[in-house]
Amino acid sequence: MQRIVVIGAGAMGCLFAAKLALAGHRVTMADVDQARMDAIAAQGIALSLDDGDFAARVGACPIAAVDGPVDLLVLFTKGMHSAAAIASAAHLVDTGCTVLTLQNGLGNTESIASVFPREHIVWGVTDFPADLHGANAVSSHGQGHVWLAGLIPAADARARHVADILDGAGLNARFAPEVEAMVWDKVAFNSALNALCTLGQVPVGRLDSAPIRRIVGTIMDEIAAIARAEGIAFDRTRTMAKVDFALANHTGHKPSMLQDRLAGRRTEVESINGAVLAVAARHGLAAPTLELVTDLVRLGEPA
Amino acid sequence: MQRIVVIGAGAMGCLFAAKLALAGHRVTMADVDQARMDAIAAQGIALSLDDGDFAARVGACPIAAVDGPVDLLVLFTKGMHSAAAIASAAHLVDTGCTVLTLQNGLGNTESIASVFPREHIVWGVTDFPADLHGANAVSSHGQGHVWLAGLIPAADARARHVADILDGAGLNARFAPEVEAMVWDKVAFNSALNALCTLGQVPVGRLDSAPIRRIVGTIMDEIAAIARAEGIAFDRTRTMAKVDFALANHTGHKPSMLQDRLAGRRTEVESINGAVLAVAARHGLAAPTLELVTDLVRLGEPA
Repeated sequence: MQRIVVIGAGAMGCLFAAKLALAGHRVTMADVDQARMDAIAAQGIALSLDDGDFAARVGACPIAAVDGPVDLLVLFTKGMHSAAAIASAAHLVDTGCTVLTLQNGLGNTESIASVFPREHIVWGVTDFPADLHGANAVSSHGQGHVWLAGLIPAADARARHVADILDGAGLNARFAPEVEAMVWDKVAFNSALNALCTLGQVPVGRLDSAPIRRIVGTIMDEIAAIARAEGIAFDRTRTMAKVDFALANHTGHKPSMLQDRLAGRRTEVESINGAVLAVAARHGLAAPTLELVTDLVRLGEPA
Repeated sequence: MQRIVVIGAGAMGCLFAAKLALAGHRVTMADVDQARMDAIAAQGIALSLDDGDFAARVGACPIAAVDGPVDLLVLFTKGMHSAAAIASAAHLVDTGCTVLTLQNGLGNTESIASVFPREHIVWGVTDFPADLHGANAVSSHGQGHVWLAGLIPAADARARHVADILDGAGLNARFAPEVEAMVWDKVAFNSALNALCTLGQVPVGRLDSAPIRRIVGTIMDEIAAIARAEGIAFDRTRTMAKVDFALANHTGHKPSMLQDRLAGRRTEVESINGAVLAVAARHGLAAPTLELVTDLVRLGEPA
C-alpha cells in the first residue's frame, strides 16, 4: 500500500486516482476546485470502465493539509498551473517522495525540478482516454498505456517502481527509456491537431481533408527541425502515422484544447504550442506555420 | 417614383429597401425566407436610425411573381447565392432594368453578367452599418456611403442615375469611376479581418495585437501582389489605414462572417477569401498566409 497524492482533479487525475485507490493504495486528491474536492471527500470517485462501474474511495484535502509520509506525488494539473501546483507541495520534499508527471506539453519537469530534486522525478506520457462527468465521476473506454522513465538516470529505479505501481492498478505502465522522444511525439501531435480542432471548432475527424492534412504536414516538418536541433529522436513518420490513426479512428474526439475553448476556459496552448515555439526561438529556428496557427489560437483565449 | 426590386432581405437589403421606400419609391423585396417575406408583406420594414424610428411600406413576393416594368433591380444576397438569385430574375431582362450590386466579395458581377447585359449593370461598395432585429426590423447608426460606377463605361449613365436615386433616399451615394479598386480594398479588408475574427471568435478590436497585426500585414502584402497582377489600383497603405481605423473604432463589431459562424450558417468565405485565391491561382501566384487562414475558416464550415 502506497500513500499517493494526486494534484489536479481533472479527467486524468480522477482516472488515475480512482484506479490506484481501487488497487488498494491510500490516495488523496488536491485541487483548487472546492466543490469538486467536497464531492470527492464525501463520495469518492465514480469510475466507469468497459468492464463495469466502480466506486473508488479517494480522499480530498488542500495540498497544504497533506503531511508526510508520502510515497508518490502525481502532478496532473494543466500545464499552466504546474509551477503553482508544485510550489504548493514544496513541504513534501522532505518526505523523499517520488514526483510523477504524465502531463501534456513541455516544461512541466522544469517546474517540478525547481522544487524537487531531479533524482526523485519521473516523467512520461499516457494515452488513456478519460472524460469527466460532473464533480466526481470519470469514464474511460478502450485501452490506454503509460510509458515512463526517470528524468535523469539516477531516477530510473524510482521510475521502474512507479511503473510497477501503475501497472498493478491496471494502468498498463512500462518503463521506457525513450520517453523524451515520446513526449515530443505527443507535443507535436497535440500542437497540430488540438490547435486545428480548436480553430475550426470541429472534432478530430473533420481534419481529414487535403488542405488541412497539408497544414498538419507542414507543422510536423517544422517541429521535426526543432526537435532535431534539440537533439530529440523525433520520428516524423511515426507521428504522422499516429495522426492518420486519429483522423481515421478518433473522428468524434474533441481535444481538451477545444473543450476548454468551448467552455470559455484558458487552453493549454502555451504549454503545448507555445513551449515548442520557445524551443524553436532558443535555436533561432523559424516555424511560420506553427506560429501562425498558435497566434490564431491565442487570439481566442479569454482576456 | 421608381419601381425597385431588392433580392435578399438581409440587413443591407432591408436597410436599402426601407430607405428607398421612405423616399417615395415603389419597392418590392424577394427572399427565399418565407417567414421574413410574410412579415415584410404584412407590416413593411421597421427602420431605426440615429434620428428616429420609421415604418417603411415595402412589398414582398417571390421573384417569379414580379413582372415588369422594373426600373432597378438590386442584388443583396450573400455572395454564394448570387448566381441562383440572378438566374431567378432572368424574366426581368426584357424590362431593360438596371441591375445594381453592392455585395461583398468578388464574382457577383460575373454572375449578373451571365444573365443581364453588361451595359445594364452597376456595381460598387457601401460602408453602411446595418443590423437585423427579427424578421422585418433593421437598425443603422452612424454615417454610411455608397460609391458606384458602371460595370463597363456604357453603363456609367445608368450608374449616375442610380447614384441620384440612392442619394435622394439619404444613402450618400456618389458616382466613383475607381470603384474596382474600392471593391478590392474591401475584399482585402474583409479577407483578413473577417476571417481572423471568425477564427478567434472575437470582435474586431481583439485583433489589435502585434502578432495578429503581423498576420494582417502579410495577408495585405499577398493581396497587393494579386491585385497588381490583375491590374487593380490597390493601395496597401490606404487599406491598412482602414484596418487601423476599424481596430481602433469598431472594437465591438462582429463581422458577418463571424455572425454566420456563431449561428452555424455557411459563411461568405468563398466569395471573399476564396475569390481572391482564385484570382491568385489564375496568375500562378502563391498567397500562403491568406490560403492558410482561408483553409482554417473552411475547416469550420457546416458540412
